[in-house]
Parts: sequence; C-alpha cells; structure tokens
Amino acid sequence: MTAHAARTGVWFIGARGSVATTATAGCAAVAAGLHPPTGMVTETPPFHGAGLPPLTSLVFGGHDTLDCPLPKRAEALAAGGVLPHGLPSAVRSELTAADEEIRSGGPLPGDTRTDEELVASFAADIQDFTHRHGLARTVVINVASTEPAPGADDSRLPASSLYAAAALRAGCPYANFTPSTGLRSPHLREAVDSCALPHAGRDGKTGQTLLRSVLAPMFVQRALPVRAWSGTNLLGGGDGAALADPAAAAAKNAGKERVLADTLGSAPEGEVHIDDVPAMGDWKTAWDHIAFDGFLGSRMILQTIWQGCDSALAAPLVLDLARLLARAHELGLTGPRPELGFYFKDPDGGPAGLPEQYQELLAFAERLRAAR
Amino acid sequence: MTAHAARTGVWFIGARGSVATTATAGCAAVAAGLHPPTGMVTETPPFHGAGLPPLTSLVFGGHDTLDCPLPKRAEALAAGGVLPHGLPSAVRSELTAADEEIRSGGPLPGDTRTDEELVASFAADIQDFTHRHGLARTVVINVASTEPAPGADDSRLPASSLYAAAALRAGCPYANFTPSTGLRSPHLREAVDSCALPHAGRDGKTGQTLLRSVLAPMFVQRALPVRAWSGTNLLGGGDGAALADPAAAAAKNAGKERVLADTLGSAPEGEVHIDDVPAMGDWKTAWDHIAFDGFLGSRMILQTIWQGCDSALAAPLVLDLARLLARAHELGLTGPRPELGFYFKDPDGGPAGLPEQYQELLAFAERLRAAR
Amino acid sequence: MTAHAARTGVWFIGARGSVATTATAGCAAVAAGLHPPTGMVTETPPFHGAGLPPLTSLVFGGHDTLDCPLPKRAEALAAGGVLPHGLPSAVRSELTAADEEIRSGGPLPGDTRTDEELVASFAADIQDFTHRHGLARTVVINVASTEPAPGADDSRLPASSLYAAAALRAGCPYANFTPSTGLRSPHLREAVDSCALPHAGRDGKTGQTLLRSVLAPMFVQRALPVRAWSGTNLLGGGDGAALADPAAAAAKNAGKERVLADTLGSAPEGEVHIDDVPAMGDWKTAWDHIAFDGFLGSRMILQTIWQGCDSALAAPLVLDLARLLARAHELGLTGPRPELGFYFKDPDGGPAGLPEQYQELLAFAERLRAAR
Amino acid sequence: MTAHAARTGVWFIGARGSVATTATAGCAAVAAGLHPPTGMVTETPPFHGAGLPPLTSLVFGGHDTLDCPLPKRAEALAAGGVLPHGLPSAVRSELTAADEEIRSGGPLPGDTRTDEELVASFAADIQDFTHRHGLARTVVINVASTEPAPGADDSRLPASSLYAAAALRAGCPYANFTPSTGLRSPHLREAVDSCALPHAGRDGKTGQTLLRSVLAPMFVQRALPVRAWSGTNLLGGGDGAALADPAAAAAKNAGKERVLADTLGSAPEGEVHIDDVPAMGDWKTAWDHIAFDGFLGSRMILQTIWQGCDSALAAPLVLDLARLLARAHELGLTGPRPELGFYFKDPDGGPAGLPEQYQELLAFAERLRAAR
Repeated sequence: MTAHAARTGVWFIGARGSVATTATAGCAAVAAGLHPPTGMVTETPPFHGAGLPPLTSLVFGGHDTLDCPLPKRAEALAAGGVLPHGLPSAVRSELTAADEEIRSGGPLPGDTRTDEELVASFAADIQDFTHRHGLARTVVINVASTEPAPGADDSRLPASSLYAAAALRAGCPYANFTPSTGLRSPHLREAVDSCALPHAGRDGKTGQTLLRSVLAPMFVQRALPVRAWSGTNLLGGGDGAALADPAAAAAKNAGKERVLADTLGSAPEGEVHIDDVPAMGDWKTAWDHIAFDGFLGSRMILQTIWQGCDSALAAPLVLDLARLLARAHELGLTGPRPELGFYFKDPDGGPAGLPEQYQELLAFAERLRAAR
Repeated sequence: MTAHAARTGVWFIGARGSVATTATAGCAAVAAGLHPPTGMVTETPPFHGAGLPPLTSLVFGGHDTLDCPLPKRAEALAAGGVLPHGLPSAVRSELTAADEEIRSGGPLPGDTRTDEELVASFAADIQDFTHRHGLARTVVINVASTEPAPGADDSRLPASSLYAAAALRAGCPYANFTPSTGLRSPHLREAVDSCALPHAGRDGKTGQTLLRSVLAPMFVQRALPVRAWSGTNLLGGGDGAALADPAAAAAKNAGKERVLADTLGSAPEGEVHIDDVPAMGDWKTAWDHIAFDGFLGSRMILQTIWQGCDSALAAPLVLDLARLLARAHELGLTGPRPELGFYFKDPDGGPAGLPEQYQELLAFAERLRAAR
Repeated sequence: MTAHAARTGVWFIGARGSVATTATAGCAAVAAGLHPPTGMVTETPPFHGAGLPPLTSLVFGGHDTLDCPLPKRAEALAAGGVLPHGLPSAVRSELTAADEEIRSGGPLPGDTRTDEELVASFAADIQDFTHRHGLARTVVINVASTEPAPGADDSRLPASSLYAAAALRAGCPYANFTPSTGLRSPHLREAVDSCALPHAGRDGKTGQTLLRSVLAPMFVQRALPVRAWSGTNLLGGGDGAALADPAAAAAKNAGKERVLADTLGSAPEGEVHIDDVPAMGDWKTAWDHIAFDGFLGSRMILQTIWQGCDSALAAPLVLDLARLLARAHELGLTGPRPELGFYFKDPDGGPAGLPEQYQELLAFAERLRAAR
Repeated sequence: MTAHAARTGVWFIGARGSVATTATAGCAAVAAGLHPPTGMVTETPPFHGAGLPPLTSLVFGGHDTLDCPLPKRAEALAAGGVLPHGLPSAVRSELTAADEEIRSGGPLPGDTRTDEELVASFAADIQDFTHRHGLARTVVINVASTEPAPGADDSRLPASSLYAAAALRAGCPYANFTPSTGLRSPHLREAVDSCALPHAGRDGKTGQTLLRSVLAPMFVQRALPVRAWSGTNLLGGGDGAALADPAAAAAKNAGKERVLADTLGSAPEGEVHIDDVPAMGDWKTAWDHIAFDGFLGSRMILQTIWQGCDSALAAPLVLDLARLLARAHELGLTGPRPELGFYFKDPDGGPAGLPEQYQELLAFAERLRAAR
C-alpha cells in the first residue's frame, strides 16, 4: 500500500463554524468534480507531484462548543450566499459523516476541569478519531472565533492554547489560522520546543491583509513613502459579532498592522476598524485609504475596496495547510515552518511581502517533490 | 579625473512637457537638498556604490516643438499643484540653462525635410550639446505626448522613431517612456541590431498599470481566477487632450492590457477608458474594478482608486533611467536591457510582475556595483 | 361589482426580459405575502386609499420575440441571484399563466409586413387579451432592450414606436420605461395628440441616474459649481450586450446627461461609459466621479459606487406605473402625465430634481384619493 | 443713512481657527472681487434684494485662547492648500485688522473666575467691539473646536455655553456651527427663553452629513429599506486632533446619526468613525457604505467617498449665517430659526431632508425680501 492510499485526518477547532463548514463541504464538492479547486494553491501546477494527500483521502472531524449539525449549518451558509444553492444537499452524506466526528469542546461556563484535564480529554478525542479511521496522521487546524487577547495576569491557558497543546500531545501537526494565542503561549514553550512536529501560524491572510502584503512592497520598491494607512472592515456573521469585542479586535488588528510595519519599516499613521454589521451576513467589505508622498512632496492617495466572503477565502487555504503539513509530517519535518508564511499575517519567520513568501512556498513545493 | 567628475547629458524628447519640466526642476531641487529624492529608486540603499552619475553631474537639454520657456512652464505646473510653490523660482537658473539647450523638434506641418534629413538634424543637435558641454555621454529619453498608433500603410517613420534613430546615430543610450513607436519600428530594426548601445522601453509604468502589476500576480498566486478587469482614467492637462485621440488612447491601452495578459495568462473581460477631463488639470484619477471568483464559485470584487499626478510619478523614474543607462553605457553594456522592465509596461523581455522585476533591478544594481 | 373587483391587464413589450419576468414573478410573490413590497412606492402610506388596482387584480401578458418560457427565464434569474431561490417554483402557476399570454413580437428579420400591418396585429393581440379576460383596462409598458437611436433618414418606425402606436390603437394607457423612441416619434404626433389616453415616459430612472437626480440639486443648492461629472457603468446580462451597441448606448446616455444638464443648468465636462461585462451577469456597478469647486477655488471630489441589480430596481417601479396609469385612465385623465416624472430620466415635463418630483407624485396620490 | 450703510459685526468664538480664518480672509477676497462667492448660498439669485448686509460691510472680531496672529495662520492654511497661494498677502490688511479685534478667551487652566465673571467679561468684549466700530449689530458664531460632550454631573457650564450666554447678554444674535453645547444647556433655558434675539444651531452640515441628508430621503422615497449605514472619516489639522478625544467624537457623531434617524425613521445598523490622521492636514476623506434592500430582498450597496476641505466648506456657510441672522435681527425676528435648518445637522426644528430645508430657506429669503 502506498502512502497515498493512506487517509489523512483534518481536525478543526471550531468545526461547526463558517470556515470549517465551507472547507468540509467544499472539499467534498471539489473531490466529486462539482467545482474547480478555485483558491487552492496546492492544486496549481507547481504542486503536482509533490506527494500531497489527495482531497479524496481527507477525513474530517473536530471540536466545537455549538450543537448545530453541519448539514444545517451548510444550509444556512447557502441561504447567505456563501455556499452555492444545492451544494449542501449534494454533499449531505459527507457533511453528516463529518458531523458525527465532532466532539464537544470547552471549557464551557461552569466546567470544573483543570487545564491538564481538558488537554488530556481533547487529545484523547483526536487520537480516538485517528485510530478508529486508521489514518496515517491527523492535522489539527484552529479556525474557531477569535478569542480576546490574553491579559497579563491570566493564570489559565486560553482555549486556543488548550487545543494546541492537545494537538501536540496527540502527535499531530498543527496550524493556527486565527489571531488567537494557540501555540504562542509562554506556558507552552517547552512543549513546542520538544514536540518534533511541524506547525505553522498565526492568523490567516485572506482579504485586506492579503492586499496590504502586495501593496506595501510596491510603495517600498518605488521609494514612495506611505504617510498614513487607514482601514475599515464591515462584516456580519459570527465573525463580526466576535470582533465587536474590543479585545478580540485588538488581537486581529495587531496582525494587520504587523504586516505593514514589517514591510514599510515602521507603522504608518492610521487606524483599523472592525465593525460588526449583522446586515452584511458572511460577506465583508474592507476599505483602505493610503496617503503617500510623490516626487517633490506631492500628495497622492490610493484607496481599495475589497468585497468578499471570508469563509470562501479561508477554506481553500485551510485545506492547503492541512495537506502541506501532512506531507511535511510524512517527511519528518519538524518545528515552525517559515515556508508557509504565504498563508499568515503573523508567520513563523520568513519574508513579509507576499511575492517573496510565494517564492518560498514554491521552493517548498520543489523540496516536497524532490523527496519522493 | 575620475569618471564621476565627468558630466552626463540628459536629452529629453518633449523637453518642455510636464514630465521633462518636472524632472529638470526636480533634479535641481533634490541636488540642492531642497527636497528628499522621493520616488527615485536609484537613491535607495541598494544603489549606493553602483557608480551611477550623481544628480549634480546631470546636464539637461532636448527637443520640443513648443516655445513656452521652461521657467514659465514650471510656474504653470506650480499653479496646478504639480510643483511646490516657490520651487520654480528656487531653481530658475537651472531651468533657464536647460531652456537654452532645447532645440526645435519636428516635423511640423509644412516641413519638407525627408526622414533622413530630420534624423541627421536631430542627431547633430544632440552631438553638438554633448561636445559643447564636454559630456562623458548623453542619454536620450522620450517623454513627449503619446502619438497615435501607426497605421498599416504608413510609409514615413513616426516622429518618435525619427528621434530614436537620431539618438542611435548620435551614439546615445535611449529610453522610450511613452507608448509611441520609438525604436520599435520595423524600419529601424537594422539600426537597432547594429547600434552597440544600451536601450530600454517602452511606456513608463507609473500609476494604474503599476498597481495592476502587483495585483494581478496576487490573484494568480492565490489561484483566484479574474473574470473581468475594467478601468477608467480621468485626466486633464496635455496628456488628457492627447489621449482623447482614440488612436493615441489605443496605443496607451495596449500597454495596460499587455500587463494583465502577460501576468494572468490571458486577457480578462473588461475595457479601459481614458477620458480627457480638463478640470482635472495634471492630476489623474484611475478607477479599477476587478471581478474575481472565490472558492465554490463565490463572486468577489476588488476596486481601486488611484489619485496621483503622473508627472510627479514619472519624473523620478525618468531620472533613474537616465542614470542607469548612462552607467550601462559606461560599462559597455549594449542592446535591450530587460533588467529595466521594472520601469515599463512593455519591457524588453524579463518577467511581467513587479516583484520579479524589482529583483532583476536589484541584481542589476549588484552587477553595476561589482563592476567598479 | 365595485371598480376594484375588476381586473387590470399589464401588457409588457419585452415580456420575457429580465424586468418583465421579475415584475411578473414579484407581483405574484408580494400578492401572496411571500415578500414585502420593497421598492414599490405605491405600497407606501401616501398611496393608501388612492384607489389603485390591488396587486392581486393584475393580469399579465405581452409581446416578445424570444421563445424562452417565463418559468425557465425565472429559473435563470434565480441562478444569477436576481430572484430568490425557491421563488420561481413558488409562483410557477402565475408564471405559466403569464407565459400563455405572450404573443410573438416583431418585426423579425424577413418579416414583410408593413408598419400598418404590424401595428394592427399588435393592437389586436392586446385587445384580444383584454376581452378574453374581461379586464377593466390594460396598461402597456415597454421594458424591451434599448434600441439604437434612430438615424435621420429612417423611413420606417422603430419597433418601440410600432408597439406604442398599437397601445394607443387598442385604447390602452402606455408607459415607456426604456430610452427607445416609443411615442416620441414625429410620425406618431397626431395619434398621440388625439388619443385621449394617459401616457408617461421615457427611460426609467433606476440607479446611477437616480443618484444623480438627488446629488446634482445638492451642489446647486449649496452653490458649489460642478466642474466635471464622469461615470462608468459595468453590466452584463442582455442589457450589457444591447448597450455594447454604440447607438444604443448613445440613446441611454442622452437620458443620463439630460438629468445633469437640466439640474445644473448646463452639462459639465465628463463622459459616461457603458461597458458590457458578461461576468457581471444581471448585476451592475456604476462609478461616478464628480469634481467640484469649493470656497476660494478649492478643489473637491465626490465619488459614488452603486452596486445593484437593474431588474430588481426596475420591476417595482414598473408595477407602480401600471397601477398609477390604470387609475388615471379610470378617472379619465389623458395626455402626458408630468406627475410621473419621479420615475423617468426624460419625463413629460415637470421638475428635474427627485425631491420635487416626489412632491408632485405625492400631490398626484392626494388627487387620486380625493377622486374616490 | 440707510440701514445698509451701517456696518455689521461678526464675532467668532474660535477666531484664530481654520474656519474663522478662512471666513475672514475669504470675505475680504470675495468683497474685493478676487474670487467668486462659491459656496455662499446668500449670494445666489434667490437672495438678491433680501436686504442682507453686503460683504463689504462686515467687520470681524472674536475670542480665542491661542496667540498665533491671523496673517500667520492664513499663511499656514495656504501652505496646506486650504487657501490659495497669494491670498494671505492680498488680504493682509484685513487679516491684521481682524486680528486686532481678537480678545483672549477662556477659561484657561488656572483661571479662577466664576462662570458669571467669565460671561460678563466676554459680553463686555463684544459690546466694546460693537460700540467702538459703531456697528448696527454684531452676530456671534461659534466655530471653535468641538468640546467633549458634557457629563451628567458637570456643575459648571462648558466654555461654549459661557460664550453663548455672553452673546445673549450683549444683545447679539447667535449661531452655533459646532456640536458643542452652546445655548443647549439646561442652565441657559431661562436666558434663551427671554432673550428676544434670533439664534440658530447646532453643528454645521458640511460634508458627509450633507450627503446623508440628500441620500437618506432618496431611499425613503423609493421605498428601499436601508439595512446598515457605516462611515469612516479621516482628517488631520486641529479638528482631527480634537475629535481624537472619544467624548468630542461622540458629540460629533450624535449629529451625524440624528440626520439618519430623523430621515429614515429609525437609526440603521452601522457605526461612524472619526480618525485623526495628521498627514491629511486640513483635508478630509469620508467614506460611507450603505447596504440596502431591493425588490424581493435583493441586496444592494451604495458607497460614497467625499474628499474636501472642511474649512472651505464651512466658511461660506458661516458668512451666510452671519448675514441671515443680522437681517433677522434687523427685522425683529426672535427665538430659534427653523428656517436655517439647511445649515445644521441638529437644527431648531423644521424638516430633516436637505431639499425641504432648502425650500424653507427660499421661503425665508422671500419673507426677508417682502419686508423691505
């Protein structure tokens, strides 16, 4: 039996959320040939022959604190225009199968378990999933709602770090697609250093920040100083509500500003707002206003308006990450993977501009191919 | 005497136009320390030590068919907000000196000279300028108004090609910052092939196309198919009036579309409009609307609005080109220079995306430095 | 039997087009309580008690040159996001009933009938519809694709005028929601003057022009001179293709510019583009750029971006017009109705600004109520 | 001597600020024929013959807590592009004259005077100005920086109310062009009720809110429900810094939201941000995003981008108000003037939409003319 006949698990933290539901339904739809693999970089020619697990070999499960069954969640996304009409029914059996593999997350209010008990319980859930399905490996990816930035005196680990610790304990590669803490907790430093597992993060780069990561280098390369970079994001859905919490928004904005500061050399003037606008549903509009100087002090302005669906932008990237980390694990690569900076606002090292990050990713694809 | 004590000529075709006036005035202002070298890539750290002629060593002259003296032209640009108030008087002596080196261009209506006579006359003007000033060399740069795309049955060379032929005959490096034909005439093929001079072109990449050259690769790298890319440019000034001629606009648009087709693999749906709006003066607004597909066929849109002054964007790049071609000539480099694709919509080979073009330019800087 | 128990016919020219299909399906959906009457001004409180025919009393039919059955057309609109999913099946019986009342339009290529024969045939179709259903009256509304602006030497009536003449001959109130000629042909002057029927037109005011009709008065009232007003429209669907014909676009643009010239006192600088972008489907994006002067010559800019669906904007207004003209006819009002200028780019007299047009419409509602 | 030979005082609270400096310099420039009266509604035909004091008859003075002389302040505004270059020197004598009539405002930190003492002192300053110049009357207008919204337990009057009380005590008509409290303090209720002076306010309607006051009625009139209205303002200058104080921004935003709520019937979803972006100088960019429903629940979006200079928008309106209140005072009109709602976000009664407010203003002009 070849490695590719083996199946690979994808374990979502936030398995009933928009991103996980879209990724689960979309993987089934693309695997069945119902849709082209739009937005999946791992399906472009440079990745052919790189030994990535095929989409048909992925098995989905995860943790969540909500109860809404995946088929119903998918229907809601279709009603909001995130998924095509007809898709939820076309992939109902795959959604139902994934739904049966979702375990209760936590800690919920009133939960008296210690951090250690929670980590042990989550790790056991993941291991059970892996063993029951006879999977070659399972990749854990955090796509849960952004949690508030931790305060200075928190004695307990945030939930995202509990799940991340559980991933390591279960021997699973891990990626954090959200701005939450995940592996970046000082309490996990030792576990991370000794884990011998590949991991990547933090904070997926999907819309406004994706744009920023190509525009900021342009200004630098053309020697045009940016005086102010301001932005407003309007979004509804669960994400909008979660980010209406100023602490969660602060966590998210830190990533956006990091991209600018890393590329421009210092953070320009300007703020970033994230507004919860329930009427927008799962669609997002991001406006950016960039004031820059031209020759002899002339004042110029670039404005961008990005209208997209975050779930539809994130889902194919999340599938990419699952496949790339699975393959990295197969090859015995360990530790933070700076080659995956292309996907993150706050990567594990590597260059800050998208073009250079893409070159790193291509080089990684080449390395994976050479390893076959 | 070192090579750097020698002076270098910069000969503008269209020497009384907005770009040439801004470049002439701006070079004097930056050389005098009145303004930082914003927008001049050759003044950034990677070009230090590359042996480029210093700004203080540049001597300006050129051809034009208009009579308005440069100091007066500069005052008009200051009134329109292109140059800072006070600058024209601060650099009046440099403008007057350059003005005295402007020779009458052509052919004007009623001119009975043959193409050969015109080329010989233009070449003599350039050589006279070079010899009188004892210049190490003179770089010729076309910054004249865009001329209509040539028809199939034109038996005579367009003016831009006459000037380009004169540059070669005078032994000068040449760059074409406009969409006009310049050296790209079949009648000049032999002269180009045998010239043993460095040259570069065509069509400077300043605003809307600059943006396109970083945005288009982003869509490709993220596997997001672009369905339609539409654009409208509003501009006044002489450029707006010239481009109100549909044939001139067609020449200009060909360059804009080439960038998209080269990057995206094929030209997407959508048109580009260039409107003459005299009320805009020398300022330009460019709106782009990009419809692209996301995962599972979701429809997303990016819009960009660029508000800038083309002259202020072009002038520092034109100074860059003069310096880079002068240095290339000093080192004996000849033929088309794909390393300068960073500056052009329609470069002489090399990659289409700005990031890769910037890497080529940096490598060229390294090569120039190594040659010292 | 009261007047309201009587039923009213609505006869669409272009009965299988996007607007007519949306109006037919939407009327059934609103009448059945499936959707609120969004966008129908006649359903707002000022029109209560005005004696308008209820939505449940409207009977639909029309002419078209296409064959696609209305239920299928509605499914296509639902797939494109114009109609809600599920609506076509919910109102299938109403769509089928309307479809059976669509007669073949013309003239098609090769049709040898004279203008008179065509008018007679169309009028007979309408009268037959009215009599078979025992309708109190039938209102004819042109919602067909825009036809090219007529040339100077056209000896034959354009199709829109043939249908308009047929409406008068059949004794029907008439409205022209398109920029086509309709009743505005010199050949129809006598028929119009003697018809003793209420009629209204031309060119429905739905999106970009609706905006212009409220923004232009703002600049006038604040004494802020508009220097240039430029616009670009991107649209797909049948409308985009029809308007890709320069002559059709010219007809459409004339209406847009008339609104500005009428309000501002003279036409400002600036052009309007209409681009066919098939990827946009039935959705339209309109960008406007308005350069205006402030105090002491300061230069200011307003830009607007309108993203909407023309059919969904037009359909409720078309239903409004059918009801208002039916009621006007019931009351014996005849001739052009300037009170309906609110709905048109090129109204039959009355004020040019939307606010004043709305006041006229409210006064008309009052008049209708008083007549009961 | 006719009433018009008499001169009229204009007393600015915030006399060294951008608005007051622009109004003072601009009045002189327009009176001298150097510029047309762009943006001054009182110079349009409907106001001819209304008996307003001519611009040449206005005499300027005011209170401020800053020291920068007006001519120097004007130079700074010219450097920032708010005033035309050359204007400060052209009207230097008028600026110097006005500067000599600026008295020290307050209370400054450490000031031990009671509210009563401050009011008395300010009133004496205004009366002294009026008497020394032999003015027919003086209109007091608040154009100072927005002060924080007062807390519940403030025992002292905010500065804006001290100045407003001083205006009444000095027998002067008063207008509040800012969101500060001014006359709207419960402590001033009795003084206001018994003052027998015309007054108007609050919060000038210049840019984003001006737009909202014409767009919101459009949605209402077309029966298109607004689901969310979001906005972001970027501005530098003193105004940006003042509004960076959340309490001041809250005061300002209350006015913006009031316009929407008054027109739409209830406040839609969405927030308004005011960002201090020093790089913008005195220029402001306001982006609005309006999500609204179309027929059958279709989702549509309008976005607007307004780029202007607040001082240049406000100054001519402030001159309008001074002239209109002076004339009202001459005719013995007293109390709040709802006819001036055209100028305010938070008017003294009257309609909320700009078109209706303009009609009220025209009717007021007619009344003034009839009174001659």
